[in-house]
Amino acid sequence: MSKIERVGVSLDKKLLSMFDELIAARGYSNRSEAIRDLIRDRLSEERLAKPATRAVAGVFLVYDHHSTELPRKLVDLQHSHLLQVIASTHVHLDHHNCLEVIMLRGKVREIEKVANDMAALKGVKLSKVNIMTTGQDLA
Amino acid sequence: MSKIERVGVSLDKKLLSMFDELIAARGYSNRSEAIRDLIRDRLSEERLAKPATRAVAGVFLVYDHHSTELPRKLVDLQHSHLLQVIASTHVHLDHHNCLEVIMLRGKVREIEKVANDMAALKGVKLSKVNIMTTGQDLA
Amino acid sequence: MSKIERVGVSLDKKLLSMFDELIAARGYSNRSEAIRDLIRDRLSEERLAKPATRAVAGVFLVYDHHSTELPRKLVDLQHSHLLQVIASTHVHLDHHNCLEVIMLRGKVREIEKVANDMAALKGVKLSKVNIMTTGQDLA
Amino acid sequence: MSKIERVGVSLDKKLLSMFDELIAARGYSNRSEAIRDLIRDRLSEERLAKPATRAVAGVFLVYDHHSTELPRKLVDLQHSHLLQVIASTHVHLDHHNCLEVIMLRGKVREIEKVANDMAALKGVKLSKVNIMTTGQDLA
Repeated sequence: MSKIERVGVSLDKKLLSMFDELIAARGYSNRSEAIRDLIRDRLSEERLAKPATRAVAGVFLVYDHHSTELPRKLVDLQHSHLLQVIASTHVHLDHHNCLEVIMLRGKVREIEKVANDMAALKGVKLSKVNIMTTGQDLA
Repeated sequence: MSKIERVGVSLDKKLLSMFDELIAARGYSNRSEAIRDLIRDRLSEERLAKPATRAVAGVFLVYDHHSTELPRKLVDLQHSHLLQVIASTHVHLDHHNCLEVIMLRGKVREIEKVANDMAALKGVKLSKVNIMTTGQDLA
Repeated sequence: MSKIERVGVSLDKKLLSMFDELIAARGYSNRSEAIRDLIRDRLSEERLAKPATRAVAGVFLVYDHHSTELPRKLVDLQHSHLLQVIASTHVHLDHHNCLEVIMLRGKVREIEKVANDMAALKGVKLSKVNIMTTGQDLA
Repeated sequence: MSKIERVGVSLDKKLLSMFDELIAARGYSNRSEAIRDLIRDRLSEERLAKPATRAVAGVFLVYDHHSTELPRKLVDLQHSHLLQVIASTHVHLDHHNCLEVIMLRGKVREIEKVANDMAALKGVKLSKVNIMTTGQDLA
């Protein structure tokens, strides 16, 4: 139900045509949508730089599921923290490796703490954390 | 049952003690594990820079689930590509927004293409893609 | 003397007011300039992902200038490549360390090769490369 | 004059041989140097995440030097801040564009503030800031 405003932007003709080319290649159907996405990205980046921002995240772990201790420790970590674990998905990659994506909700600083703890577990080969704002207010 | 080799590394005493401090804070229980993780990260980065590397990825999308067209289009994209969609998880964030994490498998270049197409869909507010190597051979 | 075009963008009122707040904090004097910068950044990113793009770069090296061999090897590297070294600036950081910023011009892939070679030199403690498009055409 | 310590690291044979391959391609002459660089990078990253860390930085600006106001404003910014401007280098890229690299010293948070202010100036097309620790103690 939010109100839409129409804003005029002055752009050099050449810059505009390069932008149109890019967004067509990316699959956008109109300019407004592409510019809104640029703006939301920038706002989101800005928020995530603050440790107290509430965010959602996915912690990606590639590990050898023959590590007998690891699964239990991972579950412990998911329960011992202030974070809300939303969901986790487990994928078999090959005979040795599996990928686990653990989705969390919490403050940026807490998410980073948990992600670090998980990355350091013996048996975890690769890890990455992907943090995003919740999209709230990013109309 | 892979063979373990013991390698000697010369380190300045001060550098070593700072490293020990860091890995303790990060929760590592021993140096070898921490150094192995540094090495795997670097190798993984290296591989991901090549568009033909086989990888796994999570595409994170925050979108307004009131966009009536979006869910169908997302499913279409998941089926129309050469990629193998492994799994997807849907999370309700608030009354308007939801988070969907779509896990994919494929070449780096294909993953990026699909992630771009998904990001450009009308209704998608924020998107991020997290690409990792499969961990294969990263003993 | 390029032509300016005026483009209309539809934005949710709330998104717009958050954007206005951000760009005020960042010191922008008007929206068009801020949106042009977002667009140029994205175009520039896109180009830099292609190894053949012509670019300018700064290679930052922190090294111990007591490494007797290093200065000669660095100069050798600057001369042995297809790259055009534009300038370099040397800064004394403390009794041991100095910072050298070497500005280069060339294709993305060549710049990365030289930056890697420089980073690997014995005595170089930290290195980072900053690659940018030349701004050409980014009206 | 610092003391060197020899540390033993256990590595899977395969992981080791991939690492050896990578560092040979990167031009490293020995493993210890490559591992030291991985460790210094990680320590440096860690420090830069804290806003109060003292750092050196290069702010890269691509701008149209026909903007009559810009050069004066840039100089003003360099003088009006708590930061120590170490040096700046100006490069002519083509008839319109020039690259200016401004080297600064200060706390991470101050550097980011100045870099933002410079990026927002009318006439600046592209900007990037490259922040590094000073290398102090990173033996």
